[in-house]
Amino acid sequence: MYVNLAILKETQPHERRVSLVPSLTAKLIKLGARLHMQSGAGDAAKLSDSAYQDVIFMDDRHALVEDADVVLAVQPPAMSVINAMKPGAILICFVYAANEPEFVQCLLTKKITCFAMERIPRISRAQSMDALSSQSALAGYYAVALGMSNMTKVLPKITSAAGVIGPAKVLVMGLGVAGLEAIATAQRLGAVVEGYDVRPETKEQALSLAATFVDTGVDATGKGGYARELTPEEKITVNKALTKHIQAADLIITTAAIPGKASPKLISKAQVSGMKRGSVIVDLSADGGGNCDASTPGETTHIDGVTIIAPLNVPSMLAADASELYAKNLFNLLALMMKNNIVTIDWEDEVLADTALTHDGKLCDATKTDKTDKKAKAKSQSK
Amino acid sequence: MYVNLAILKETQPHERRVSLVPSLTAKLIKLGARLHMQSGAGDAAKLSDSAYQDVIFMDDRHALVEDADVVLAVQPPAMSVINAMKPGAILICFVYAANEPEFVQCLLTKKITCFAMERIPRISRAQSMDALSSQSALAGYYAVALGMSNMTKVLPKITSAAGVIGPAKVLVMGLGVAGLEAIATAQRLGAVVEGYDVRPETKEQALSLAATFVDTGVDATGKGGYARELTPEEKITVNKALTKHIQAADLIITTAAIPGKASPKLISKAQVSGMKRGSVIVDLSADGGGNCDASTPGETTHIDGVTIIAPLNVPSMLAADASELYAKNLFNLLALMMKNNIVTIDWEDEVLADTALTHDGKLCDATKTDKTDKKAKAKSQSK
Repeated sequence: MYVNLAILKETQPHERRVSLVPSLTAKLIKLGARLHMQSGAGDAAKLSDSAYQDVIFMDDRHALVEDADVVLAVQPPAMSVINAMKPGAILICFVYAANEPEFVQCLLTKKITCFAMERIPRISRAQSMDALSSQSALAGYYAVALGMSNMTKVLPKITSAAGVIGPAKVLVMGLGVAGLEAIATAQRLGAVVEGYDVRPETKEQALSLAATFVDTGVDATGKGGYARELTPEEKITVNKALTKHIQAADLIITTAAIPGKASPKLISKAQVSGMKRGSVIVDLSADGGGNCDASTPGETTHIDGVTIIAPLNVPSMLAADASELYAKNLFNLLALMMKNNIVTIDWEDEVLADTALTHDGKLCDATKTDKTDKKAKAKSQSK
Repeated sequence: MYVNLAILKETQPHERRVSLVPSLTAKLIKLGARLHMQSGAGDAAKLSDSAYQDVIFMDDRHALVEDADVVLAVQPPAMSVINAMKPGAILICFVYAANEPEFVQCLLTKKITCFAMERIPRISRAQSMDALSSQSALAGYYAVALGMSNMTKVLPKITSAAGVIGPAKVLVMGLGVAGLEAIATAQRLGAVVEGYDVRPETKEQALSLAATFVDTGVDATGKGGYARELTPEEKITVNKALTKHIQAADLIITTAAIPGKASPKLISKAQVSGMKRGSVIVDLSADGGGNCDASTPGETTHIDGVTIIAPLNVPSMLAADASELYAKNLFNLLALMMKNNIVTIDWEDEVLADTALTHDGKLCDATKTDKTDKKAKAKSQSK
C-alpha cells in the first residue's frame, strides 16, 4: 500500500512556485507516499527534475492525476485536471472559493475532497501549515527589495567624505506577518521605520522590532484578532493623522488585506500628490485591488514624482524559498492525514475540518459556520 | 563681481544625475556664484526646478553656457555645448579622456580649462572631492538591492513556523569602495558574506565588516594601492581557488575595474555553468565590459539557471543621493578655485593640477607625468 501523490506544474501567469521541493521527498516517502510529478514542475523555481530523488516524472498532467490519491498544487488547477482526477481523490492548493465559483462547482460534481490552504485555521497547532503566513513573510521582505531598487535614495545612513546620506524614512502600513517582516528588513538596513495598523495591539510588535508606531486614536480591533472595517468618520480621522507620516516617508509599504473583499484604501490620490518627489509606494495588496487609490495592480506607475509599485503574487518572486516553505506547510498538513501508508481523514480534527472546502459533493462551509464564530476567522487573511 | 555658474541637464541615455542640488545653492552663492541652470536639469533625479532657490533657469543650453565662467555637468556634454562656451571658461565633469579623443580635441581648440572628475587625486585632502568614491559607494549598495530583487531566495535567515530559510551566501569580488559597501549592506541584512580581492591588504577591511576573506595565495598589490594585472599563471591559480567559493554562492557581486582598460575577467563561463541554479551575479563592472565572461553590458541574461545582471551607470539609479554627493564633491572642488567672487586657479595646488585635463589649449597630462609616479594613480579607478 502507498499513497499516490501527484505534483502539478503551475500554469497561471507569474506563478513560479512548486508544491514539492527536493528536501521533502524522502520524508513523504517515509509517510507512505509514491511521488509523481509533472515534468518541469520546479523549473520556474530553479529546481530541475534531476534535483528530485525517487520521483516519477510525467509529461501529461491528465495522466499524472488520474491515479492520484492526493494532488498538490499552489494555484487552483484547470478544470480539465479536476475532471481527470478520481472521484473522492484529494486536492490541496490555494483556492479562494469566492473568486472561483465554477471551479468549486467542478470539485463538488467530481466529489473531490479539497483542502484550501487559505483556510488553515490560525491556531497554534496549525502554525506549521499556515501557508498564508509563510508566504506573507516572504512578501514583506521582498517589498523592501522592490523599494530599494526603485528608490532614488539609499535606506541606510552612508557616510562619505563629502557628507552623509540617509537614513531614509520608511512607513509600513498594516502590521500582519508581511508588515512585520518588512519592518524587520528595513530596520536591518538601518532605515528609520514607522509602523501603522488600525489594531492598536500591533503597537507592541512594532516597538519590539525597534520601529515607532503611528497612533491615530482609532481602535479597529475586530473579531479573532483581525481588523474590522472602519466607519467613514473613523476613516477621515485616521487619514488626517496619517497624512503627515505619509508625506514624510521616502518609502511606504502597504500590506492591508481583507480577504474576499477589496483591499482597504489607506492612501488617497490626494495623499500621493502631497508626497515627496522621488518617494516610493510598494502596495503588497495589489492582488485585492491595492491599498493605494493610485495603484494599478500588476503595474508600476509614476504620479507627481511618486513611484507606485503594485506587484501581483509577490511570494512567487522568491520562488525557491516560497516553494520551500509552502511545501513544508503542505507536508505538515499531509502528515495529519497520512497514516500506515493510507489517507485517513479525521473529521473531528479542527485543522482538517476547517481547511476542507469540499468533501463528498458537499461544501464544507456549512459545518464551519455551525461551529463557533472563532472559526470564521480562518477565512480572513492578514498578509 | 560674481562667477557665472551654468549647470547642464544631462543628455546621455540612462544618466539621471544632476550636478547641483538645492541644498548647495546658498553655499555657492556665498562663494560668489551666480547660478544658471538648464530647465528640468534635476527632473530625472526627482528635483523640480521649483526646489532650487535663487537659480536662473534657461531652456537653451547654448545660451546657458555662452556667458558661463564655469560649466558643471556629470557626463561630458555634446561638442556643440563646448563650442558655445567662452574661450578660457572652465568645464567640470567626468570625461575619461581615453574614450573621448574628439571631445578632448574640442576642449583644446576652444581653450577650455577642463577638470575631469575621474582625475581627482586619491590623497586625503581631496577625499571630499572624490566623486569616484562617492558614486562607487552607492553602486555597491545598489548591487545588493539588485541581487535581492532578482534572487529566488532571501538574504537573511527568516524563521517561520514551517522552518527556517536563509541566510544566503554572498561573495563580493573586488574590495574597493563599492565592494566594501556591498559587503556592509549584505551583512546588515544578515547574509553570510565572503570578500575577495587580489590585494591581500583588503583582508583587514573585509574582516572589519565581519565578512570572511577568500585567500587564493596570490598577491597582486600594484603601485599606489591599486591592483596590478595578474600573469596568466597567477590567473589559473586564483581561478582554481575561487571556483569553490563561486559555486557555493547564492549571490555574487563583482566590482573590479581597471580604468581605461577592459574590466578583468573574474568569472569564466565554465564557472557560471558550475554555479547553483537560481544564483545571481551582479556585475558592477559592466561599463568596462564586465568581470564575468557571461555578462552582456546593460542586460540581464540567464545561463544554466544563473541570472547575470550587468547594469550600466549604476550610481544613476540612485539619482537623488548620487546627485547630492556628486554636487558636494563639485562644491568642494569649486571652493578651492573660487575666492573673492572670482575664479583663481592655483596651479601649484596638487589637487587642481592633477585634476585638470586641458588648459589654455594644452593637455595637462604632460605636466602630470613629469611629476612623481604617484600621480599616475589618479587615473586609476577602484569602484
